[in-house]
Amino acid sequence: MTELKNDLFLRACLRQPVERTPVWMMRQAGRYLPQYRATRQRAGGFLDLCKTPELACEVTVQPVELVGVDAAILFSDILVVPEAMGMELTFGAGEGPRFPQPVRSRADVERLPVPDPEEKLGYVMEAVRLIRRELAGRVPLIGFSGSPWTLATYMVEGGGSKNYAKVKGMMFNEPETMHLLLGKLADAVAAYLNAQIANGVQAVQIFDTWGGILTTRDYREFSLAYMRRIIEQLTREHEGRRVPVILYTKGGMGWLEAIADAGPDVVGLDWTIDIDVARARIGDRVALQGNMDPTMLYAKPERIRAEVKDILVRFGRGSGHVFNLGHGITPDVPVEHAKAFVQAVKEESPAWH
Amino acid sequence: MTELKNDLFLRACLRQPVERTPVWMMRQAGRYLPQYRATRQRAGGFLDLCKTPELACEVTVQPVELVGVDAAILFSDILVVPEAMGMELTFGAGEGPRFPQPVRSRADVERLPVPDPEEKLGYVMEAVRLIRRELAGRVPLIGFSGSPWTLATYMVEGGGSKNYAKVKGMMFNEPETMHLLLGKLADAVAAYLNAQIANGVQAVQIFDTWGGILTTRDYREFSLAYMRRIIEQLTREHEGRRVPVILYTKGGMGWLEAIADAGPDVVGLDWTIDIDVARARIGDRVALQGNMDPTMLYAKPERIRAEVKDILVRFGRGSGHVFNLGHGITPDVPVEHAKAFVQAVKEESPAWH
Repeated sequence: MTELKNDLFLRACLRQPVERTPVWMMRQAGRYLPQYRATRQRAGGFLDLCKTPELACEVTVQPVELVGVDAAILFSDILVVPEAMGMELTFGAGEGPRFPQPVRSRADVERLPVPDPEEKLGYVMEAVRLIRRELAGRVPLIGFSGSPWTLATYMVEGGGSKNYAKVKGMMFNEPETMHLLLGKLADAVAAYLNAQIANGVQAVQIFDTWGGILTTRDYREFSLAYMRRIIEQLTREHEGRRVPVILYTKGGMGWLEAIADAGPDVVGLDWTIDIDVARARIGDRVALQGNMDPTMLYAKPERIRAEVKDILVRFGRGSGHVFNLGHGITPDVPVEHAKAFVQAVKEESPAWH
Repeated sequence: MTELKNDLFLRACLRQPVERTPVWMMRQAGRYLPQYRATRQRAGGFLDLCKTPELACEVTVQPVELVGVDAAILFSDILVVPEAMGMELTFGAGEGPRFPQPVRSRADVERLPVPDPEEKLGYVMEAVRLIRRELAGRVPLIGFSGSPWTLATYMVEGGGSKNYAKVKGMMFNEPETMHLLLGKLADAVAAYLNAQIANGVQAVQIFDTWGGILTTRDYREFSLAYMRRIIEQLTREHEGRRVPVILYTKGGMGWLEAIADAGPDVVGLDWTIDIDVARARIGDRVALQGNMDPTMLYAKPERIRAEVKDILVRFGRGSGHVFNLGHGITPDVPVEHAKAFVQAVKEESPAWH
């Protein structure tokens, strides 16, 4: 194994001492980078980019080299898991993802297999191996998956949704069918993340993008319970190191204690909560990741720096903070602003350690 | 004055004893009703419907007669206020609202007047008077406005938005310009709501649809402060009765204490918080409105009834609860489900009073 030169991210995830706060950005391999857009152009479609390991590797490494983040995150899409379960997936130009044959009945759910990730998602595993080689120990590599509830949302709606009529309808009217679907997804995701770990990712994040549209009761029953089921199945140590698990539910700031109880090493925060409040609530049990408003990257660099300082002051002294945005970086952010953000964290955070 | 035959809603807003829990639905005068669609067809465009008092009256009264709700809410659109400030407003077929000349600079903001509502929004006032006559004391009439922050969002973005780049950019880079805009909007909204009250609305709701996209600090500074400024200017008594003020911030459940402190009689809840938790936090100071997940209306009537019972149990005994959805009813809900919801509240709630 190549020695890891910058392990700030992994240490912060485990609340071990660090010299400064590590920083990365959700969706950092993305359209705000001209180099990403160029690689994507060469790939053809978005799914082609995901499925071509050399190109997925290229865009994964770009923000490490261009923006200076302290961790790389595997470039892929959460919906490759349902596709590996046999669902046709398309990305129309300018549109979001579509499943032309959505899951609507008990029979539809029963037909879905729990796929072998090495077989059905081999292109992801190849990308992971390539990226590790390419990174050569510069920074750790994060793997990821969507949460079962979030994946189910797309699979039942057939794509993005405004009202979630169909997935909520299934949840309310056929809870057993929904539980069957979520159970399969949890097992598929656990196998998928374990394969990512076996192939070389050094931490994993579960993205629960749509957990926040649920009531407290439904969140616990239909989203959190299945993320816990995943975490219980995960390989927690590999290559002689702990593999941290990050759990991020957008809109879930009311449920932080329950999220921390599900067993992750790190809880991801969106920007609607003050990080000092979050630390007071769960900081004795888990590390925190976040949580600058991603739209702050539209502000001038000096305003961005002031915000970084404010969040560092709020978190206070000590380890257990992975600096990030509260959600993904948006496509029209100037690259210079993303760099200014990362630079500000690097320059302002040593005083707190 | 016609005597008010059903004042359950007004009494519950003031936490006075009631025989049963009153119920209405946000966006109850809406597309899920075939009769609404027929009236809208006759009107022509959506704005024509808002601006024709007879037709606005017709759709306002429809859910009282067809669904049996305990309050009517004035049919209008929050964006008539920016239009009254001189901004051109269009609703394309199937699209959302557009302001072709959005507010982007200090000069744009300085040009905006605070309109006289009787002069510039006379069609709303005429609708209010017509509706009161048409209701003839059957149920009270609620007036409303968008919050300054929510209105500013549309005015700066030029319509709906995914990333809020422009309005957040103005907030971060030119906070003084944003404050000038929000101050004008607060005064315009206060005058508008006071005119609604003078013409006959018996309660008012401020809809802060987009407050929940802000950080805690920005919510207080750029949204809540201006809702407080409105509340401080409002006529709180008319026709010998208290005029309750309802404050609703979607996604603001982390800030309930601060919202209650801003001075409303009622705090509107979205569905992401349990109403017992909300009551424990602020129920000694304000009434609560909400908070069934609006997508529950896609479920079967017996499931809807179970959910109504669950929320009644959670709220517990006594007054101070206005039953509602946690957000607006969606266009594709079956009318029978909306009726089943209202009926369930009427039948299940007397046991709690």
